Amino acid sequence: MFELTAQDSQSKARRGRLTTSHGVIETPAFMPVGTQGTVKAVSPRELRELNAQIILGNTYHLFVRPGLDVIRHLGGLHQFINWDGPILTDSGGYQIFSLAKLRKITEDGVHFQNHVDGTPAFISPEIAMEIQATLGSDIAMVLDECPPWPCERDYAATSLEMTTRWAERCKQWIEANIERRTPTRAHAHTLVFGIVQGATFDDLRKQSAEALVEIGFDGYAVGGVSVGEPEELMMRAVEASEPSLPADKPRYAMGLGTPPQLLELVARGMDMFDCVLPTRLARNGTAFTATGTLNLKNAEFAMQKKPIEDGCECPACREFSRAYIRHLVKAEEILGLRLITLHNLHFYLELMRQARDKIGTGDFAGWRSAFVGNYRRD
Amino acid sequence: MFELTAQDSQSKARRGRLTTSHGVIETPAFMPVGTQGTVKAVSPRELRELNAQIILGNTYHLFVRPGLDVIRHLGGLHQFINWDGPILTDSGGYQIFSLAKLRKITEDGVHFQNHVDGTPAFISPEIAMEIQATLGSDIAMVLDECPPWPCERDYAATSLEMTTRWAERCKQWIEANIERRTPTRAHAHTLVFGIVQGATFDDLRKQSAEALVEIGFDGYAVGGVSVGEPEELMMRAVEASEPSLPADKPRYAMGLGTPPQLLELVARGMDMFDCVLPTRLARNGTAFTATGTLNLKNAEFAMQKKPIEDGCECPACREFSRAYIRHLVKAEEILGLRLITLHNLHFYLELMRQARDKIGTGDFAGWRSAFVGNYRRD
Repeated sequence: MFELTAQDSQSKARRGRLTTSHGVIETPAFMPVGTQGTVKAVSPRELRELNAQIILGNTYHLFVRPGLDVIRHLGGLHQFINWDGPILTDSGGYQIFSLAKLRKITEDGVHFQNHVDGTPAFISPEIAMEIQATLGSDIAMVLDECPPWPCERDYAATSLEMTTRWAERCKQWIEANIERRTPTRAHAHTLVFGIVQGATFDDLRKQSAEALVEIGFDGYAVGGVSVGEPEELMMRAVEASEPSLPADKPRYAMGLGTPPQLLELVARGMDMFDCVLPTRLARNGTAFTATGTLNLKNAEFAMQKKPIEDGCECPACREFSRAYIRHLVKAEEILGLRLITLHNLHFYLELMRQARDKIGTGDFAGWRSAFVGNYRRD
Repeated sequence: MFELTAQDSQSKARRGRLTTSHGVIETPAFMPVGTQGTVKAVSPRELRELNAQIILGNTYHLFVRPGLDVIRHLGGLHQFINWDGPILTDSGGYQIFSLAKLRKITEDGVHFQNHVDGTPAFISPEIAMEIQATLGSDIAMVLDECPPWPCERDYAATSLEMTTRWAERCKQWIEANIERRTPTRAHAHTLVFGIVQGATFDDLRKQSAEALVEIGFDGYAVGGVSVGEPEELMMRAVEASEPSLPADKPRYAMGLGTPPQLLELVARGMDMFDCVLPTRLARNGTAFTATGTLNLKNAEFAMQKKPIEDGCECPACREFSRAYIRHLVKAEEILGLRLITLHNLHFYLELMRQARDKIGTGDFAGWRSAFVGNYRRD
């Protein structure tokens, strides 16, 4: 399913190909986030034109609205949203912990009330896998508990052990049901990724990774990052997890990050990324460039004929000036955030395309340090 | 500039071709409204794919934001917004009367403070023409006073006389400046339309139309409609104005209307229309169909696999179900209002395309009465 095609000699960066039911993903890969069954402000056609290889769907959001009955009736998530490429779905755990009300975690699973209408619901490791099978995910994630930051060691250790038992139950469900053909998945095979937890404790990260590898998954995610911790601790959590992960399986750093962070994570052996920054910041008027972000609301852009970024081949930069996009943002016109969203997604996708190229040609190290050096951090 | 190519035998409906600096407009024509330099939620590329022939820009809004300096510096409105088809601009008068604060109307013109930041400004007939020349409009409208509804006869008569004098001043400005080549209009020729006023008084409408024709314009608009009056009075205002307008010039019914109203207005000899209904209602989840509007928020659509309208060739109906679009609207996702906007604009543009066909083949009367009969009014 996963094939490494190149390995950087000066870092842990790798280039690979992950085969899913809906197509091949060249890694390192960025996955645009389609929380509620749409990458915000973007159409599936635009995603295809941006060469997005895979998108992410949020199980919790889709479970709450429109609900599984609707998606099942419409033929699964791919058909519902008219996206025929690969889809990765999370387990729903992260949103239950961050959004839902009245959560109660037990060994069995999580009781919660959703944040939209307060309807009570229960999700277990088995139910999380079943929901993702109903959605028709190409890559499903195990249910985990994602502890907040900061987190006491005792809590992290206890939580991690339950997360490991939950991962085992997910694996058992998959093995018992892997040949089960749902109406929406007559031919398909879902890949399942485990999620390494352990907060900021190196030994717990190692313990978690080893336990998951022992169970055996199609890929491994580093979770419990992007929860408010400083960048240094985030990098360390990845560094502590990675050595225990098998080289021949894809690694996914969840919910990350800024452009320089992505390259640093690629250098630390990570292959897949998802992040709301390109879409979320776009809706606030912020665009990514090779030298840092631009806030297009600023008056300095009012008269500028040039595009957001010179030489950029995205649909916004090919056709529109900074002055026009600034006007749209100031006037709160939807086209403004549409154009910046397209630019930002192109920027992230193109960054990963270049990383793949540079790893393939052996030029990753110099390119990475030049990019990170040129990028102004806010 | 305007050529009639067919005339319905059972009504005043006409088919024609209006030539502008940026292309030919087949009439009857619907003009999507691009208030602030963008048809809300739609890109220029999408407008071209919808076969929009001409779009409308609002002079007042563009004057207030981003301002003429920006648009002049960026090379005129076409280049600023990346639309190379024809653009009609209004004079700004209507918005000054409906949006601006502290208006003071004198024979000279209108003093006002804009609704965004309160900056005081003054607009006269001459300034309105100059602004539209700077924008680079293909069709400019004279400055008029648009009285509210209801309106006393005395006010309507007095206002109308000033509007006529203003129209004369606009014509004089154009004649004095028509060969003037601005940086943005090296080759172009602006068409100028007069605006018939007279509120709901048949004789004032006739007086207004005759006075404008005496001055002589490239086309004639019926203004002072779509100001809250009942449909019957709106139709009557058009019927009272139309007989005084020359057959060989285009007629533009301003700010109208619903789909059946458009056909009724075509039957009354109107050629051009602009209306915010397709875009504004879309943002509220309402879609147009041949049998009336659908509110896609309604629960009945939650499980429906079919498109908004069977057989519709718009980008939303070709690819997406009612169930998905309903989900997007309920979840307040931008893609939802984008898709309904595309559908609604397609509906209006297609309605006018069919009207042109039916006038050309002599089948307008039966088609019109069938459409109006099938369309459920809310």
